[in-house]
Amino acid sequence: MPSYVSDKEKILLRLRKMEGQLKGIRRMVEEDKYCVDVLNQLYSIIAGTQKVAAIIMKDHIKGCVKDALTRNDHSDDYVNELVEVVERYTKR
Amino acid sequence: MPSYVSDKEKILLRLRKMEGQLKGIRRMVEEDKYCVDVLNQLYSIIAGTQKVAAIIMKDHIKGCVKDALTRNDHSDDYVNELVEVVERYTKR
Amino acid sequence: MPSYVSDKEKILLRLRKMEGQLKGIRRMVEEDKYCVDVLNQLYSIIAGTQKVAAIIMKDHIKGCVKDALTRNDHSDDYVNELVEVVERYTKR
Amino acid sequence: MPSYVSDKEKILLRLRKMEGQLKGIRRMVEEDKYCVDVLNQLYSIIAGTQKVAAIIMKDHIKGCVKDALTRNDHSDDYVNELVEVVERYTKR
Repeated sequence: MPSYVSDKEKILLRLRKMEGQLKGIRRMVEEDKYCVDVLNQLYSIIAGTQKVAAIIMKDHIKGCVKDALTRNDHSDDYVNELVEVVERYTKR
Repeated sequence: MPSYVSDKEKILLRLRKMEGQLKGIRRMVEEDKYCVDVLNQLYSIIAGTQKVAAIIMKDHIKGCVKDALTRNDHSDDYVNELVEVVERYTKR
Repeated sequence: MPSYVSDKEKILLRLRKMEGQLKGIRRMVEEDKYCVDVLNQLYSIIAGTQKVAAIIMKDHIKGCVKDALTRNDHSDDYVNELVEVVERYTKR
Repeated sequence: MPSYVSDKEKILLRLRKMEGQLKGIRRMVEEDKYCVDVLNQLYSIIAGTQKVAAIIMKDHIKGCVKDALTRNDHSDDYVNELVEVVERYTKR
């Protein structure tokens, strides 16, 4: 089971909502809606994605990473992998 | 016509691709895929959204904003609105 | 005069404050302070820089860019340059 | 000793360089330099800060967090604290 299993329903709900929003944005563009209205909707996709990422990252650190370090099982691999993910989201 | 009309097909292509990616991410979560794999896919949604936003912002400045200022037609409204959008994306 | 002339004192005040914060962060590192305390202070540098950038961008759009477009004087150069700056801050 | 002790000289070098850059930016504003030139310099402060933060975060995870989890010493506190820092840098 992945570390986010207890937040799975919350995550799926957010992802489904974002799919709807993205479809709505595509329709706005198809119907030639005003640039700034499209930009504002696009921003909510970024914010929504960051929120989902924050939930999964929290669960991953409290789950997989903590477990690997506690049992000292491939712990360096988990630490290096976490550092890479955090760096990607930080440098953005 | 909105300022992005000449990039419309390019934008729609990117949005459709992102809808597919988002659906793929939902499936990954449903199938309990590994946290970091989900996080890496989520990051590509952020990058993709920023790319679409950059295209529309460029078109908007070169189109709507430039037109409004050239004709001095509600130009302050356009300038204030642009400042707001840019601030939102900058402060993030 | 640059577009930010009316906000110049506010900007200088913020920049001087940030110089003090940055010097404080260097001292924290020299004195081996705790990682997370350093990270929290570093974050305030990012937030502070974004705030100053937002002020100058607002002034630039309402000043230089608006003037160039209104007088149609090298307006394409200003628009292209603005697009580049906004893209850099947006894609980050 | 903090986790970043082995990177201390590298970090201090970067922080001193950023202090010089920030002083340079203040001088640019005092001398009424062009908005976009100031904005480009400000961007390098954000990029520089993110780079220093990435170094310290990596060291912190590989040091403090790993140690706390391995020895199971206040490990939940370290995990919660790390989650908070990562969230702040991610959501930005």
